[in-house]
Amino acid sequence: MTTLLLAVPIAWAPLWTTPLAEIAPDLKLAVQGRDAFEPAAVDYVLSFRPAPGFLATLPNLKIVFSLGAGVDGFLADADYPKAVPLVRFVDHTLSREMAQYVVMHVLMHHRQQPFFEQAQKDSKWRQTIPPRRTEDTRIGILGLGEIGTLAAERLRDLDFKVAGWSRTKKTVEGVESFAGAGELDAFLMRTDILICLLPLTPDTKGILNKALFAKLPAGAYVINVARGGHQVEGDLIAALVFETEPLPETNPLWKHPKVIVTPHIAAISDPRVAAEYVRDRIARFERGEKLDNVVDFTRGY
Amino acid sequence: MTTLLLAVPIAWAPLWTTPLAEIAPDLKLAVQGRDAFEPAAVDYVLSFRPAPGFLATLPNLKIVFSLGAGVDGFLADADYPKAVPLVRFVDHTLSREMAQYVVMHVLMHHRQQPFFEQAQKDSKWRQTIPPRRTEDTRIGILGLGEIGTLAAERLRDLDFKVAGWSRTKKTVEGVESFAGAGELDAFLMRTDILICLLPLTPDTKGILNKALFAKLPAGAYVINVARGGHQVEGDLIAALVFETEPLPETNPLWKHPKVIVTPHIAAISDPRVAAEYVRDRIARFERGEKLDNVVDFTRGY
Repeated sequence: MTTLLLAVPIAWAPLWTTPLAEIAPDLKLAVQGRDAFEPAAVDYVLSFRPAPGFLATLPNLKIVFSLGAGVDGFLADADYPKAVPLVRFVDHTLSREMAQYVVMHVLMHHRQQPFFEQAQKDSKWRQTIPPRRTEDTRIGILGLGEIGTLAAERLRDLDFKVAGWSRTKKTVEGVESFAGAGELDAFLMRTDILICLLPLTPDTKGILNKALFAKLPAGAYVINVARGGHQVEGDLIAALVFETEPLPETNPLWKHPKVIVTPHIAAISDPRVAAEYVRDRIARFERGEKLDNVVDFTRGY
Repeated sequence: MTTLLLAVPIAWAPLWTTPLAEIAPDLKLAVQGRDAFEPAAVDYVLSFRPAPGFLATLPNLKIVFSLGAGVDGFLADADYPKAVPLVRFVDHTLSREMAQYVVMHVLMHHRQQPFFEQAQKDSKWRQTIPPRRTEDTRIGILGLGEIGTLAAERLRDLDFKVAGWSRTKKTVEGVESFAGAGELDAFLMRTDILICLLPLTPDTKGILNKALFAKLPAGAYVINVARGGHQVEGDLIAALVFETEPLPETNPLWKHPKVIVTPHIAAISDPRVAAEYVRDRIARFERGEKLDNVVDFTRGY
């Protein structure tokens, strides 16, 4: 029998085992830290941030599935068995949730929602006009992968001026494409609202730093919905994710009037969809077909 | 010389006269309450809520332009000179601003933004999963005109299940259409988030009342971005606009934990775009061409 080992925090395990049991009844499920299992019997692993060195202890591992789109938790494992393909979870529902989160925060900033929340607290009818027209508001998305592209399209459809920056040139209708280190400055100089959706790799670690912020126009707004590792916290103007998650209660960012903090809520992989995803890919693999969304370890995503 | 009379609060006048002077330099502009003018010399009026009876004092009036999409401020004038066409401001920028506001408030509710704002105030990392999947969240839009249709499309593109209710059946891709009094109950019963974008007419006055709320599923959320007159305030569960604008400081809705209150900010007509709109329609009219967006006084919008 084929065994899938789930390596997640125990409290979260039922969320994943329930749909997996229903959607992939032929798989034998084991939960790391809860169920006994033979390392040699584990065929597949579904995880997010496995303990470093753990995957190397499974001699017959065929595929590692990431629970999320980001795979930095695996790449940080120096002992990751590189011969075993690592498959990212690339799914429309996940991208759509991320795009919703991005659209909501762009609109809350653009439409001065914090100002109106304060007005409501004060019971004051503070009628104003938006400080900048939508057509004149330039959004820049760092990372034009599946998620970045969807967010760009949804913001474009609301009439914002949208551009993206990525490793290679992309073609997205109505979205200006900047590519490579050589075009980063030009991209930043035309960006009023910067959104980070990059994968975390050695190239992108700490990219949201003082030098980058200095190239943005005065008053620019930054939304980091990627990883804490993308930002240098000491250099931060405005941020949504942090180097340390959860953010400690004593961190001054919580109370900064220009900062909006939310937990890791922009998109949580849908366990049911992920269960189907994993089942289908195992079936394809077992039919000898080519795997999709396999991580390129050189590129780092 | 052709005279356009601007009948708006004096403080707001420069916002409109500046682009009008630039965009329509051939028009003679007069501001009611600021400039002297001969009633017989007034050809056109641009206004939002003129004093009842005032328009009837202008014997040579050719067209009345509404500053906004809603014309209830004119229809409330019993002495409105019915022979004079009343032209609504129907413009993509205005519809787009309204759609943005609607999308933002749908997302803030759907994504539990108030919960995360409280968590931020408490410096607590309260990781949660959305209570309802986007695909299972049914949005119902009362009024599928220019604004309602655009809001429906933008919400549909974020994967919500969208339906609209209007006087006559509408065809909007991916949006279910309900029409007429006979289909209102079926529409309400399938609606988790109800958005009111109706024109205010004798038929729609007070439509957001106890009887209507009772037909919505338990826990439904209401966003009224139309007029205060659509809602019966005593019957209100959640509301964004009020019978009395501005909402008095003592009104308990300000402090209700389930209510979000903002001033009249969802969309303000863009004076520059409106100036072009008025100029073009005057030119067309003067060439003897047919006017568009003329209000049907029987229908009431």
